[in-house]
Amino acid sequence: MSIYPKNDLLIRAAKREPVERTPIWLMRQAGRYMPEYRELRKKAGNFKKFYKDVNLAVEATLLPYHILGVDALIIFSDILTPLESLGMRFDFKEGEGPVFENPIENEKDIEKLGQFNVKDVSYVGEIINQTGKRINYEIPVIGFCGAPFTLAAYMIEGRTSKDFKKTKKFMYEKPQAFKKLLDKLSDMLIEYLNFQISAGANAVQIFDSWAGYLTPDDYKEFALPPVKKIISSLKRTYQPVIHFTKGVAGFFDAMITSKADVYSVDWMIDLETVKEKLNNQASAQGNLDPIVLYASKEVIAKEAIKILQKWGNETGHIFNLGHGLMPDMSVENVKFLVDTVKEKSIR
Amino acid sequence: MSIYPKNDLLIRAAKREPVERTPIWLMRQAGRYMPEYRELRKKAGNFKKFYKDVNLAVEATLLPYHILGVDALIIFSDILTPLESLGMRFDFKEGEGPVFENPIENEKDIEKLGQFNVKDVSYVGEIINQTGKRINYEIPVIGFCGAPFTLAAYMIEGRTSKDFKKTKKFMYEKPQAFKKLLDKLSDMLIEYLNFQISAGANAVQIFDSWAGYLTPDDYKEFALPPVKKIISSLKRTYQPVIHFTKGVAGFFDAMITSKADVYSVDWMIDLETVKEKLNNQASAQGNLDPIVLYASKEVIAKEAIKILQKWGNETGHIFNLGHGLMPDMSVENVKFLVDTVKEKSIR
Repeated sequence: MSIYPKNDLLIRAAKREPVERTPIWLMRQAGRYMPEYRELRKKAGNFKKFYKDVNLAVEATLLPYHILGVDALIIFSDILTPLESLGMRFDFKEGEGPVFENPIENEKDIEKLGQFNVKDVSYVGEIINQTGKRINYEIPVIGFCGAPFTLAAYMIEGRTSKDFKKTKKFMYEKPQAFKKLLDKLSDMLIEYLNFQISAGANAVQIFDSWAGYLTPDDYKEFALPPVKKIISSLKRTYQPVIHFTKGVAGFFDAMITSKADVYSVDWMIDLETVKEKLNNQASAQGNLDPIVLYASKEVIAKEAIKILQKWGNETGHIFNLGHGLMPDMSVENVKFLVDTVKEKSIR
Repeated sequence: MSIYPKNDLLIRAAKREPVERTPIWLMRQAGRYMPEYRELRKKAGNFKKFYKDVNLAVEATLLPYHILGVDALIIFSDILTPLESLGMRFDFKEGEGPVFENPIENEKDIEKLGQFNVKDVSYVGEIINQTGKRINYEIPVIGFCGAPFTLAAYMIEGRTSKDFKKTKKFMYEKPQAFKKLLDKLSDMLIEYLNFQISAGANAVQIFDSWAGYLTPDDYKEFALPPVKKIISSLKRTYQPVIHFTKGVAGFFDAMITSKADVYSVDWMIDLETVKEKLNNQASAQGNLDPIVLYASKEVIAKEAIKILQKWGNETGHIFNLGHGLMPDMSVENVKFLVDTVKEKSIR
């Protein structure tokens, strides 16, 4: 089902094959900063109905193709999507994010989790499939999932957190049970990502958004091994895997052993350091501070060019932000960034 | 006025002189987690009255001496304290933290800032002086200030922030004005810390709590130079300077050029890496994840010992957390940590 895209800049950059210019896409590029997105969301009624409605989700996914001219489309979905299949009940509350009805409190709650059934997320496959068709396979469609640690953190906290108090307490006091949960999630995510690839995803990204709050030792013991397991278990022909962690500077050396094709980094680590450490063995994605997009176009151009220069003319870099776009950002500035990178990175 | 403390473990560790055991104190050790602190705060009425009331502030400062048996007392105060002297008006709102009436919005607001007058913070000197007397100069009294970048961020945001949007926009669009503000703050802080030292502080700590949200380049351009300027301008005989930055892993190499005696680090960087990079040229402080204190005593002991082992038997390490204690932590667990470190680090 996977049809190779016509514009394959992202795939070539991910595999360190020659590129004419640096590919660019942006995390949360289909998001609230776009009036068209807000219209679609209104139609859907709420966030969950939105990402489960194949037609609306495809429309959202496509917006950056038409409006920004990016080099890849990440499907509009949520990292929590597959958790319902395990019996987790949650809803998205306005201004609060996800809130779980039945957070994981102890080992028994882990044992009670159901078996993941990929049919429960068949709509995700449909979104991937239809997105490819709608753009006539012009650019890659990126599938994604949350990493096991990040999903476990949501399941234990029951909501977003500033300090991950419950998660860490669980991890420190019941490390074996915590690993059992991570393992269950890994198995689910292998199936989930393989399903996305078979549905036509041209690349997949694993988001370990919260692992950066761990010590390097705990990252290596808890967060990293399940990601390695997932990456080694994917059935791919050419599809690159992108591994994203926020706050990774203190354990980047460990992260880059995950065997991903691309490591997506935030802005708190220097791209020259990243390049040196990758040593032509993998590619990098990032690393503009999203906050730059609140500044003037002059600043946006300057900071974007700085990042392009840090990487230099070699292949192996996918331009992106260090984290996602924010709801109050200006579409005009975002578009200006995309245009600037496309223009200024021509080899 | 500065009287050398009887227990000088912290000073010796800061100067890499032999120690019988690792000294320990904890950031925010005089804080809301202690019922006695909450009583004092109630007496004061509000937070600002509390830190301006010499008697109550001294009582708060002393609590960890009696209750925890730590090796140093950081004065109970706030990093925003000296800003009133510049004409900044702010108050502390319950559950919100500081809120400024007149945040800095443009270059003119910087020019309008008043001249710092150390008399406006004479109560801080009194707190230092009386604390020393009250403990009969048994252990060091640590004075402190916020670093220029962190204070500038508060002044521009007008409150705590998750993304420092306004600060970064100001910094990117008006870098010269931003540097003028940092410079004004540096001059103030030099005077403020010198005053604290002359009032009897046996060590001073500079808190750059927010600099970790910057890119390494911006850290080097904006946050670091003013800290260097402050450190080089302090009139000290023996008093060590401790430089703290949260989220420092991506630019630790730059931070350690500030010429501080001690670098205080969070838990997202490995202490073995820190030690290697310091290469016997400076000492380290930290780096236990405060969240460990929510776990069982077994976990607390294990994680504390892990950090002691990472540093090893050499001098040059001051035990502390990677960030401050939290209001809902258990005094019993905190005391257990102090006892464990004191017992397990005996050479």
